[in-house]
Amino acid sequence: MDYDVCIIGAGWAGFNAARAAAKLGKKACIAEYREIGGTCLNRGCIPTKAFVHYSKIGFSLGDIRKKKDEVVGRLRDGMSYLVKSNKIDYFKGRALVKKDGSVSIGTDNIKPKYILLAAGSSPKDLPNIKIDHKKIISSDDMLSLDAVPKKLLVVGGGVIGCEFASIFARLGSDVTIVEITGQLLPGVDSQVSKKLLSAFQKTGITVLLGKGAQDLDLNSFDKVLLSVGRGAVIDGLWEDGVGIKVDKGFIAVDRGLKTAIPNIFAAGDCIGGYMLAHVASYEGELAVNNMFEKQEKRDYSVIPSSVFTAPEIGSVGLSEEEAKHFGASYKASSVHFLSVGMSHIFGDTQGFAKVIVDTKSGKILGATIIGLQATELVNIFSVLIKNNITIFELKKTIFAHPSVSEIVAEVAKQAL
Amino acid sequence: MDYDVCIIGAGWAGFNAARAAAKLGKKACIAEYREIGGTCLNRGCIPTKAFVHYSKIGFSLGDIRKKKDEVVGRLRDGMSYLVKSNKIDYFKGRALVKKDGSVSIGTDNIKPKYILLAAGSSPKDLPNIKIDHKKIISSDDMLSLDAVPKKLLVVGGGVIGCEFASIFARLGSDVTIVEITGQLLPGVDSQVSKKLLSAFQKTGITVLLGKGAQDLDLNSFDKVLLSVGRGAVIDGLWEDGVGIKVDKGFIAVDRGLKTAIPNIFAAGDCIGGYMLAHVASYEGELAVNNMFEKQEKRDYSVIPSSVFTAPEIGSVGLSEEEAKHFGASYKASSVHFLSVGMSHIFGDTQGFAKVIVDTKSGKILGATIIGLQATELVNIFSVLIKNNITIFELKKTIFAHPSVSEIVAEVAKQAL
Repeated sequence: MDYDVCIIGAGWAGFNAARAAAKLGKKACIAEYREIGGTCLNRGCIPTKAFVHYSKIGFSLGDIRKKKDEVVGRLRDGMSYLVKSNKIDYFKGRALVKKDGSVSIGTDNIKPKYILLAAGSSPKDLPNIKIDHKKIISSDDMLSLDAVPKKLLVVGGGVIGCEFASIFARLGSDVTIVEITGQLLPGVDSQVSKKLLSAFQKTGITVLLGKGAQDLDLNSFDKVLLSVGRGAVIDGLWEDGVGIKVDKGFIAVDRGLKTAIPNIFAAGDCIGGYMLAHVASYEGELAVNNMFEKQEKRDYSVIPSSVFTAPEIGSVGLSEEEAKHFGASYKASSVHFLSVGMSHIFGDTQGFAKVIVDTKSGKILGATIIGLQATELVNIFSVLIKNNITIFELKKTIFAHPSVSEIVAEVAKQAL
Repeated sequence: MDYDVCIIGAGWAGFNAARAAAKLGKKACIAEYREIGGTCLNRGCIPTKAFVHYSKIGFSLGDIRKKKDEVVGRLRDGMSYLVKSNKIDYFKGRALVKKDGSVSIGTDNIKPKYILLAAGSSPKDLPNIKIDHKKIISSDDMLSLDAVPKKLLVVGGGVIGCEFASIFARLGSDVTIVEITGQLLPGVDSQVSKKLLSAFQKTGITVLLGKGAQDLDLNSFDKVLLSVGRGAVIDGLWEDGVGIKVDKGFIAVDRGLKTAIPNIFAAGDCIGGYMLAHVASYEGELAVNNMFEKQEKRDYSVIPSSVFTAPEIGSVGLSEEEAKHFGASYKASSVHFLSVGMSHIFGDTQGFAKVIVDTKSGKILGATIIGLQATELVNIFSVLIKNNITIFELKKTIFAHPSVSEIVAEVAKQAL
């Protein structure tokens, strides 16, 4: 079979790349040796959010896992259906890119016009602490625990660490987070990070900042979650001499997502950067478009990001620290959820939305929300920022009452 | 005391008008004879949504009423605080506009530069069926019932009727809705209305379309909710000879919200039209701006509206029927909630989002959503439509994964 493109990896990047190829009328195949859906569906976003939701409504760990498996199973079926209905061929097995430009998957050997590497990422060890999947565990292992650990140490206070800390504190674990930098969620607006810190402390989570795992006695914990970052899955992906370049452990690509080899592109976690499912999806589509249509450079200026802690966090664009760093003439304004009727109805009024506005143009530079539905509200700001809607235009937009989203309109009233 | 503006009614229109006046540095007073917050806070949006939320999570009627009172009380306190902190004088009592241009409230008599009539609306009777607050009751009465009616007849399948039908069916009433037109929620996209009809029927609600209350034996019901529209509160609002004009029961105003008297404006439910809190708020602010700043005409082109039934509905812009009626060259596309990961996690995959796009320009003409968080999602479409963001621009906007809002991105992928 002649393929226009062979995609290695059926995660968010690969799957959406294949759909984009099909939309362009190109013949695509995907090679995947694990389950369809990659990290996001099987070991990342979806299972974690199922853990968040079902732990909130009081399910036991066993029932949460059951629900999680159900949801993941249903979504895998949906993806498989879309693969078939888009006439994308699916190869189950490990793919190897060969020197002659072909791809071998088990006994199959195909020679596609283009190759997309979208093999994803996996949890990293620390130099002195290795994941043994027993006591020292990864986020993957967290999702299949048989019992709630009595004492849980989370090493790394990034998104993954904070989400699991929040979930397992709710399930009854005595949780300690140790984070090497000076704040939880490094990079997030510091005011929001402080709010999360105090919320965590109120729920009994111990947070140790500016410290590493080596400062602690690991013997005093039942489980240690290592959430210190993820590395690209590249081992055994291509033969020696193919010529693909690697930079700091990730596949090196140009602004159009092309590797050092003209007909080999890469997308998703294996090229590093944001390592978010929606960015992987964007990159997968962009790579395919760049293979067959005119070149477009990747643009990461407006990438929303979500953290499913309690309270939730959503952010997009610049944080106040970044605005300051870039020397923007900005005004930061915050509106508390207390001023939104719907928050009172839901009985959840903690947190706030903070927006950074350019004082000259009224352009919205960034927004961070901590509190009720923050991971949904961030999308409204994504639409606003991406499409250059100023705060003056936002003031004229009517929001439905009552809704949690009214906080966006309140922010507009107060900014400038 | 000299007032720049005297506002009659402390509902959504009056309250936001007063805040707008304070922002312009004008001295404002409000006259109100009932509680602060008007229909929306005391007898409308907020109590109803408290009923929706707490009935969903299994509270008894008594506990729902308690929670409702708590929430309403807290929000009243918030509004009273804002009245004080904005230095707005508050008169408790019935206001009367006099021929000499003054306003009397009990023993107080003031002569303001401008008057804003924002006295709101109240439930209407039918010619042959009158509300007696015992068996034949209004939406106000529904919020203070002591027991769940065994057999409830809802006369009128508009927003209020459908919301109460949904709530009381969940609380255990045997509910019948009778609606004189051919569909539930007249004016809403007919495909969405049909979806609501089938959801209602599945939960055991009897829906009689094309019929009136006169076709039924009222004796076979314990309570009859009359939800057949609302009329302006204007009786006794001004002396004979003031010269304010009334049109079909509502105060007549021009495009700038001025009545027949140059220094008397009106806003909110008492002028008719949408009769929504967020429209009242918009009109209140606009009226005050038009008193003191340059004239601006009211613009109802992008008004979102929400229905808190199960499933929820949100709509903004044109329905498909309206697009057809106006002769637009449009494409209608729908995306089912089944294609959104987050819906599977929440275990609520019924419903869809439907968008009407101009096939020439890619302009979004309208959107209707039925299903999970529809009353929030409608705000994203409100932002898109109001700010003329085309479907092509929307395609380039990245949404956070996983989120319910991703359905908006999916709609963009499928439209055009």
